[in-house]
Amino acid sequence: MIKVNFSSEVDEARTKQILAEIKADPMGGWMELPHKYDVGELARIKEAAKKIQEESEYLVCIGIGGSYLGHRAVIEALRPESEVKIVYAGNSLSARELQYVMNEVGDHDFSINVISKSGTTLEPAIAFDAFRAKLVEKYGAEEAGGRIYATTDANRGALHDEAVEKGYTRFVVPDNIGGRYSVLTAVGMLPMCVAGVDVDKLLEGAGEMCASDFEKWDGVDLVANPAVQYAWMRHILRGKGYDTEVFASFEPATIYFNEWLKQLFGESEGKERQGVWPASVVYSTDLHSLGQFMQDGRRNIWETIIDYPTDETNAKVVQAVRTAHGAGGIPVLTIGVPSYDEKGFGELVYFFELACALSAKLAGVNPFDQPGVKAYKNELKKLMAE
Amino acid sequence: MIKVNFSSEVDEARTKQILAEIKADPMGGWMELPHKYDVGELARIKEAAKKIQEESEYLVCIGIGGSYLGHRAVIEALRPESEVKIVYAGNSLSARELQYVMNEVGDHDFSINVISKSGTTLEPAIAFDAFRAKLVEKYGAEEAGGRIYATTDANRGALHDEAVEKGYTRFVVPDNIGGRYSVLTAVGMLPMCVAGVDVDKLLEGAGEMCASDFEKWDGVDLVANPAVQYAWMRHILRGKGYDTEVFASFEPATIYFNEWLKQLFGESEGKERQGVWPASVVYSTDLHSLGQFMQDGRRNIWETIIDYPTDETNAKVVQAVRTAHGAGGIPVLTIGVPSYDEKGFGELVYFFELACALSAKLAGVNPFDQPGVKAYKNELKKLMAE
Repeated sequence: MIKVNFSSEVDEARTKQILAEIKADPMGGWMELPHKYDVGELARIKEAAKKIQEESEYLVCIGIGGSYLGHRAVIEALRPESEVKIVYAGNSLSARELQYVMNEVGDHDFSINVISKSGTTLEPAIAFDAFRAKLVEKYGAEEAGGRIYATTDANRGALHDEAVEKGYTRFVVPDNIGGRYSVLTAVGMLPMCVAGVDVDKLLEGAGEMCASDFEKWDGVDLVANPAVQYAWMRHILRGKGYDTEVFASFEPATIYFNEWLKQLFGESEGKERQGVWPASVVYSTDLHSLGQFMQDGRRNIWETIIDYPTDETNAKVVQAVRTAHGAGGIPVLTIGVPSYDEKGFGELVYFFELACALSAKLAGVNPFDQPGVKAYKNELKKLMAE
Repeated sequence: MIKVNFSSEVDEARTKQILAEIKADPMGGWMELPHKYDVGELARIKEAAKKIQEESEYLVCIGIGGSYLGHRAVIEALRPESEVKIVYAGNSLSARELQYVMNEVGDHDFSINVISKSGTTLEPAIAFDAFRAKLVEKYGAEEAGGRIYATTDANRGALHDEAVEKGYTRFVVPDNIGGRYSVLTAVGMLPMCVAGVDVDKLLEGAGEMCASDFEKWDGVDLVANPAVQYAWMRHILRGKGYDTEVFASFEPATIYFNEWLKQLFGESEGKERQGVWPASVVYSTDLHSLGQFMQDGRRNIWETIIDYPTDETNAKVVQAVRTAHGAGGIPVLTIGVPSYDEKGFGELVYFFELACALSAKLAGVNPFDQPGVKAYKNELKKLMAE
């Protein structure tokens, strides 16, 4: 189980109340997910993954934001062995980038997993157009349809309708789980399965973080829960004027896990003119970069070390950094991960989802909406219409 | 030439004085570098690159911090065509990461470029030990020596001495240019040449940014220089209480260029308990992530868009973001890059080096030291000795 090396003051009654609110929230479906998993869909996902592994050298994952970052984070961190190379498209509007990914796929056999709740988000829609055309050209319309896997709304939307019409294999983006909390749904599960991630162990890890406390939240001491501890510590620190949290990892492969964390916290808390800026560093490269700032720069930052199990030398760097930065005058929190594998990352995902939702609620904001994202979309729509 | 879309108040006399100080600084060698290039060494670098291309499928670049980020930034952004794959080691102490890179090189033919001023920094030293052993095992001691390229101090140090003794090809880390300002020296030039970057055009770009103003700084209007404008705008913003700068790019391939920027500014300015936290986003993925925070979060952040030439749709996103985030109440600065090629990146490197040095001096700190980096090194030494 994940452990933290600090101890916060916790208002237990308030915590219970907030947790009940989250559970009752229309977007709180991630909370009980590990225990209410749709095993039928999971079996279908595994079947689809097997088919993709048999007939493709590449899987093109098309999605943006929450339909992209979570599974990439786990896949890049674990580097599981698979014959299928996973590539990502539709997460920017750069034509240069799209062309690059198309060139990489080249003449290889490939399949597509297009992930979009609505099917109308511009970035994935453009990339899907391009890759679907490539697929049809290569295999003909019928076989192409058998190589497209659509993860989308269960009942409606442009992608849903197209998938039904063309007979794509469909998986569901649940109505009660938002993008940044969706990594353990079909959104992340299909790409992770294809990449060779042991998703059962991932769910087991998430389930332990959940079961060990969530199921008992009505009857036991919440104060000892590490996610609750961390949420309250964040709340106390921001109350003292700390405005930037730096997630630090000592494993270069976890760079996309940091990106997922930045999305989770930035999008959940950065609203109503408040929020702690979520930043990240990967040591020891960044000890020769932002490490200078951590040691000596402005002092309203704090550091949250994600301490993965590692070799002896690297563990010494972790200890050295903790001592040096603490002496430099910034709070250094450590989150100890029990294992660098699917189980450990399953725990981490649930730990941070829970801590983030609680922390946002403590700040008085809705952890599950993203009203600000509409602003650029509206501006873009205007410009596209011109 | 790079253009900025804003106009700052500039104290011209103070600017001139600071630029003279930088020029006279023992670590200010980067300032005149594009015009005082060692053409003999550049020719030797090109020869070495050709030899590496002829006899290797992989080049293992071993270095950390300033001996790593700059060339990786340019190589990943430009994705030049080369038969040689560049991989990076020695930038962390993770044994997991080192093993991963070793597995990737596998049985392929390879050469090593080890980059370290002293040769004693722990991370590259450990990686060099591992890869040198692999090289000797594969080719025997003598041929291995011919496949090692050492970029190090001209006259002394552990790596210098070993290179002389074993007959490695040597290139020079100049005494008057610090790591984060060293991308256009041999530190960056050899890997970039091997990767297929047109380094002459890179120098041409840097030279234009330099020549167009630097050579004339004694006689002309400094106020119009975009780097001077940008440095003063940063100074004005931090004076108003803005404490976080977010570098925004709309090209996913520039993610490491953002990392280099974070090192440049973080290490130059994050000292004496001050400094603007340098953060970065890559849109449009991050519009569905930190974009929420940019639009609606705490308002003491500003955004610096690096506006690369791009396709029409992507350009509309740039415009939409500028409008939306500006309306959200944060300053949005735009730095317009004339071309997405070696010349453009040459300009960018010089532009940011100059702006950063000037900006740090305006804040009253030394742009060229990194006293805080010693703190963790000292702690680590203690632990390693135990």
